[in-house]
Formats: sequence, C-alpha cells, structure tokens
Amino acid sequence: MAMNIRHLISLADYSKEEILELVKLGEKIYNSPKDYAKSCEGKIMATLFFEPSTRTKFSFESAMLRLGGNVLGFSDANTSSVKKGESVADTIRCISYYADIAVMRHPKEGTPKLASMYSEIPIINAGDGGHLHPTQTLTDLLTIHTYKGGLENHVIGLCGDLKYGRTVHSLIKTMARFNTKKFVLISPEELTLPESLKRYLKDNYDVKIKEVRYIEEAIEELDILYMTRIQKERFFNEEDYLKLKNTYILDNDKIRNGKKDMIIMHPLPRVNEISYEVDSDKRAIYFKQAKMGVYVRMALITKLLEVE
Amino acid sequence: MAMNIRHLISLADYSKEEILELVKLGEKIYNSPKDYAKSCEGKIMATLFFEPSTRTKFSFESAMLRLGGNVLGFSDANTSSVKKGESVADTIRCISYYADIAVMRHPKEGTPKLASMYSEIPIINAGDGGHLHPTQTLTDLLTIHTYKGGLENHVIGLCGDLKYGRTVHSLIKTMARFNTKKFVLISPEELTLPESLKRYLKDNYDVKIKEVRYIEEAIEELDILYMTRIQKERFFNEEDYLKLKNTYILDNDKIRNGKKDMIIMHPLPRVNEISYEVDSDKRAIYFKQAKMGVYVRMALITKLLEVE
Amino acid sequence: MAMNIRHLISLADYSKEEILELVKLGEKIYNSPKDYAKSCEGKIMATLFFEPSTRTKFSFESAMLRLGGNVLGFSDANTSSVKKGESVADTIRCISYYADIAVMRHPKEGTPKLASMYSEIPIINAGDGGHLHPTQTLTDLLTIHTYKGGLENHVIGLCGDLKYGRTVHSLIKTMARFNTKKFVLISPEELTLPESLKRYLKDNYDVKIKEVRYIEEAIEELDILYMTRIQKERFFNEEDYLKLKNTYILDNDKIRNGKKDMIIMHPLPRVNEISYEVDSDKRAIYFKQAKMGVYVRMALITKLLEVE
Repeated sequence: MAMNIRHLISLADYSKEEILELVKLGEKIYNSPKDYAKSCEGKIMATLFFEPSTRTKFSFESAMLRLGGNVLGFSDANTSSVKKGESVADTIRCISYYADIAVMRHPKEGTPKLASMYSEIPIINAGDGGHLHPTQTLTDLLTIHTYKGGLENHVIGLCGDLKYGRTVHSLIKTMARFNTKKFVLISPEELTLPESLKRYLKDNYDVKIKEVRYIEEAIEELDILYMTRIQKERFFNEEDYLKLKNTYILDNDKIRNGKKDMIIMHPLPRVNEISYEVDSDKRAIYFKQAKMGVYVRMALITKLLEVE
Repeated sequence: MAMNIRHLISLADYSKEEILELVKLGEKIYNSPKDYAKSCEGKIMATLFFEPSTRTKFSFESAMLRLGGNVLGFSDANTSSVKKGESVADTIRCISYYADIAVMRHPKEGTPKLASMYSEIPIINAGDGGHLHPTQTLTDLLTIHTYKGGLENHVIGLCGDLKYGRTVHSLIKTMARFNTKKFVLISPEELTLPESLKRYLKDNYDVKIKEVRYIEEAIEELDILYMTRIQKERFFNEEDYLKLKNTYILDNDKIRNGKKDMIIMHPLPRVNEISYEVDSDKRAIYFKQAKMGVYVRMALITKLLEVE
Repeated sequence: MAMNIRHLISLADYSKEEILELVKLGEKIYNSPKDYAKSCEGKIMATLFFEPSTRTKFSFESAMLRLGGNVLGFSDANTSSVKKGESVADTIRCISYYADIAVMRHPKEGTPKLASMYSEIPIINAGDGGHLHPTQTLTDLLTIHTYKGGLENHVIGLCGDLKYGRTVHSLIKTMARFNTKKFVLISPEELTLPESLKRYLKDNYDVKIKEVRYIEEAIEELDILYMTRIQKERFFNEEDYLKLKNTYILDNDKIRNGKKDMIIMHPLPRVNEISYEVDSDKRAIYFKQAKMGVYVRMALITKLLEVE
C-alpha cells in the first residue's frame, strides 16, 4: 500500500486552507488557461465509471485534456469486463500501471475509499452512491468564490429536497467551515434537513439556521439561492408530490424580491425545478457553475499530480 | 443564444461557394495532411452519438485527431446518463463548456438543429433520423471532385432504394446545384424517387431526369454510378424482395458496358448489393470514398473552428 | 490486399530472434520511457473490441498514449454499429483510413487473421475466442526476461487448468523455443495438458516434462510458478469442483519450500486462486507482470509502425 499519495475521497480529509488553495488555483486557471495547457503533458487519467454519469465524466475528461493530458476509461461497468469477480484492490493495482491518476464513480458507498488504500496513483471520488461527491462541492465553492468575491459571510438559501440530497449536505458541511452567516433551509416538511446535520452545525459552528416552507418567505435576505430537484420517488402518493412540486418550481415571480446581486445555483441536470424563463435572469448562473466545474477539476488534477 | 456561430445542420444552409470551398480545402488537406497536423491543437471535439454509428464516429474522431485536436464523447445514449429527462437545450449548453465543437447524431429529426439554437460552440449534424446527414454528402462531393476532376456536367446514375434513401436525396439536391447534366434513376417501381423531389428538380434546375428499371439500360452513359442498399423491410412480402434483390446486385456483368472512367460509389456499409468481384475493378472507388470522408471532415472542422 | 505489412496474429509467425528483439525493446522502453514519449506522435490506434476486455484494452491504450499517439475505439460490439451485417473485410478496409494500427479482440477464432488479409494497416490480435492471445505471452516473456535475467534454462511450473487455458498453451509453445529446461505440469487429472501438445513438445524440443497433481510435489525445483484459474464450468459436478478448488489455491504454506528467487506469475484477473496473503511475498510478481504488459505492447507498436 502506498502511503504518501494524496487522494480526494471526502472534503472532510482536506483542511480549510487546502480547500481554499484549490479554489484559488481554479480561479487562476480560469483566468489564464493557456498557462496550464501543457501542465499534464504525457500524463494519463483513467475514468472508471462503474455507473454512467456523462456530465461528470465529460467534465473530468475535458479538464485533463485542457491540461494537455490524455484520457482512457469506461462509462459503464456492463460494457467493461471489470465484473469478472476481481476485487477492487486488484483492479486498482493494475490501473496504477495504465494511468497516472484515476477518477472513480461507483454505485457502492466507500468503494473509492477502498480503492485508494491499494492504489499507487491518486484516486478522485466522482460519486459513491448517495454518499459523497466532493468535486461537485468544489465546483460550487469556486462558483461562489468567483461570483460573490469570496466564500465567507453569506446568507445561503437551500431549496428542495434537503433530506436526501447528497449535494446539499456536502455543501452545507463545507460552507459552514467558511464562516457562513446563515443557512436558510427551504423545503417541504417531508424533506427537511436531517436533525443530525442540524445538530452537527449547531455544535461546531457559529452559524444561524432558519427553516421555512416557501421560497417567498426568505428570498429577500439571500445572497445565494441553491436549488435542487425534488424527486417523485420520495413521496408516498402522487397527490402529495403534485401539490408540492409547483411550490418549489422557481420562476420569475418567486425571485422578484431577491437581491440584485443574489446568485441562483443548481448542480444540474435540472428537469423542471427551475422554469426556463429564469435562465435569462442575470442572477441565474447555473450554467456558468457547470463551466466552473472544469476549472476546479483542472486545479485538483494539477495538485494531485504535483505538476503545479 | 449565440448568434454568430456557424454550424452545419443542413447543406441547404450553405451557399454553392461555401460548399465548393469545403471540398477544395478537403482536397488540399488530402494532398498535404502534414500542413494541418497541428491545426486544432488544444481544441476538443465532443461526439454525441445518441444512437450508435461506429463508422461515422470514427471518421469524425480520426479527422479531429489528425488535426492535432482531442476527442471526448459517447456512442450510445443508453450507456450515458443523458436520458435523465434533461432538455437538449440544457445538455448542449453544458457541452459548450466541455468542448470547442460538437458532433451530434440523434434518432429524432431536428434535434441537432434545436441544439444549435442553444449552443455556444459549432454543432455538426452527423445524422438525425432518416432526415439529414450532410457530411456524407460532403464526402460524396469530395470523392467526385477528386476522382472526376470536378463537380459539374456529370451523368449520375443512382441505383437502389431511391424512395427512402436519405443519402441519395441529399446527394441529388446538392449535385443539382452544380450543373449536373443528367440524373439516371435506377430503381424498382416500389422504390422510385418521390414525385415531390422530381418536381423540385424540374422547377429549379436545368437537369435531365431519366428513369429506368435495370442498370443495364443506362450503364453506357454514366459518369458516376451511385449504389445504395435495398432493405428487406421496405417490401410487403419476402417473394417480391427476393425477386428484386438480385436485379439490383451489382456484378462484373452489369458494369461490362460502362465507361472506362466511370466511378462506382457506395456510402457503405454494404451488405450484399455489390458483389465482392467488383472490388478489384479499378472503377470501384467506394473504399476510397470512405477515406475521403476523413479529409472533408477535417476541412469542415477547421472551417467551423476558424483555425484555417 | 496489402502484402508488405507486418501483423501480429500468432507468435508462431515470428522467429525466435524477432520475439527476443521485442522483449529486449520492451525492457529498453521500461528502463527509459521518456526516450519513447513521442515515438508515435501523430499516429492513431483503433481498438476494436468485439467483446469487452477492459484490462487488455487499457493496456494497449496506455501503451499508445505513452508513445505520444492517439486512440479511438469501441469496447463492445453491441454499442457499436459493426453488427449491421458488414463483412470483416469491409470493416477493416475502412478502419485502415481512420487509424494507423488496429488492435482486435473477437469472440470468433480466426477473425483477426481474416482481417489482416484485407487490412492496409498492421493488425494486432488481442484475443480471438479461446484461440490465441499473443501479447499476453509477450507480457509473460518480458516479465521472465526482466525478473529472471533471461529466457533460457528455466524450470517452469504451470498450475491449474492446463487443458483449456489458452494462456498456458501459448506460453509453453513459445518458451519451448527458448531452451526451457523442464516443464512441470501441475493439474487435476480432469485438466491435464492435451496429449497433442505434449507430443508436439517431445517431437520438437529437448525439454523435460513432469506431471504432478499437487503443487507441494514440485515446488522445490521451480524457477517460475505460473498460476491459472480453474473454472467451475469445467467440472461435471459441484462436488468435484469444490474438492479440487482448494488443492489449487496458492497460499503461503504451499510455497514455503520454494526457491528464494522463484517468481510467481498469473495473467490476471485472479478470483480466488491465489490467497491475498501471498501478495506480500517478494516472489509474487503478478502485478509487476501486468505493468510489463504496457511496455511490451509499446515495443510491439513501435516495431509494427516502424517508428523505432
């Protein structure tokens, strides 16, 4: 087992300073990408997607290619032969010879962590079941840093499914470390933030928490509105779902009283939780957010490969 | 929506001059590929194949790689996650951040057109259902230009399924713009060229049209013989299909009386519509035609990326 | 048909000197990979995997990328359109225009050979059914050459399924050409080496052959112990399989009396035929063997492309 290699399995393993360093490097690359166009020349990234996620895979591959590196990988364990019964430990040991860094998405929680214990190359967790997806959070942080001028002292509204949403939990835990002023939790009663997470925040941080049912109740004070999808499967009956769904679809009406410099974020893909009319509002930056994902991944790759 | 970006959705959107420019650039690249080996350095092409088409995908990827660029993509919507219910508009907006140019094949007519309306990067239509496949036509044009010394004044025989064949309709409409002398339509009665297309030709161009049932009736006058496949599914009963099939299988006998400098084309893949014995005839250039496809796509990519 | 192109379909087509040259070049590249980092610049490899084999595909792709070349390909005939009924001859003729070298894996014996007859570019057989897999054998040879200081005069133990194992048959036939001192065949009675192969060895080479049932009977004299998997499907009943399985699982006990400089090899993936406890034994080099696979493929590619 290789002991001196740095991986990214969870942001909890990274100090506040390290996270900020990644975000700032991401911004630097965003501002002068040409300076990094050959940083990873001769390096190979393996994208090991044991379940498909085209967007995340493309974002990583684009990041590596824009750094002058190369990519090999698979997008679905079914069209690969990795299901022959080989252990994750064996698989990753061999991948270590084919590539210089590996990105792993796996339906089973903890698999990227396990892989990192046997790998001779850096492993990046690109999502393990409903558990962690740290590069989505890094993407959100770079977006906030770029479009709000910094990570500290914001009033952050989080809207939608706060109970099951992996993205939201990770964002809350990470932003709490950066002196967030207030979290405004906007969700139906069925999908509120887990008590354990609220308790964790209260015990560890000096952050205000406010819970409301409707966007309109809190829109005026928000610096950031982070939207997420409400999935039909979360409800006992169709009727409840339909009733609630419309309450949480963002439209021009609901953001009318928002601050002029508020930003509206969404991890994408969206289905119908944000009306298309909102897209042309200057505060809607969810597509720019997707763009930021490439740059923060470029920063992460250069750091882990120690080419920066 | 980005307004100043050039796409290739249909050749009908391109002037005769623009088409000729692409064909000539393709020929130039074919003659000195090394001059273009770094034209697209640092650029990324996304190949978005919502239905598989290995040959077309390879041709585009080879073109981009031979220009020094890079490629990311998927070959089947089922092994990608693009079916999560996201709109084409949202998908393409994100792809714009991952790549500099996108090639799209989609089973649904009009989808590449729709994508181009939201894209911030050039979109190339690589086939949308039975509708359009403009780079196949460009391939045919470069082949004719190279092997017949120009595009004008030819007698062009088109043989096989003229009713449903997307390739044939597009080729006819485009070649008509280049002063074709005569189209000789060779097909069974069940699969003749649609009346509307014949009417369109007569109304807009000074081109002769001749319809025959058998290759032998017209072979002597042809400069170009363009073969297509006759698909079993087009017939009501097996008996009709079997009867006709043999009539339209090209063999050495049927081309015996053809001109010495006639060229025999086929968009490939062929199943059995051209006997293997024809392959060694010097006039059979359908494999060279596939080769030309790479060079005309190189020309198209350099034009759309404005690196030429 | 192109006549002057060199392919690798079977090692039987290569002289002893040519094989040794490949192995030595592999070792040279392994020792100074940077000297070869741009050997294949501007070249394209097509990986045509008509059945999935992630490990072999990655090994080839990594080899090509580490030589500065590019890669395009498919990993499964079902997500490609190559099954439209086109002949292998037609497919490979077109691939010749998209790539400079092609690697083919196919479930049907003889398909890579057939392809090579129509190809204008070098074809490498990456496995055709249960028939041949020459680059696995080259990998084994480079491993032996590197870790045993040469290919000649070894006592080689082969353990497991010697009846059906393609890898083992190919290794035996090739190593016999390099003055192997003795083959020790370790297998259950149901899975012994075919009589025809034993006859072939006796008729052509001056090599000793010893057959035993248990690893412990021969471990002391081995320079090399080559393990393979015993597949459940080979047995008539579960009971026989379970009884035998444990006999052929390698553990620390079974290798206790082996030489200090013996090497333990395995083509991977392993399922349970080698206990994890063996991994930390210095003599276990099966992961290093996988690493060697990349370098010998780099050697092969540079030779076939004549860039060395």
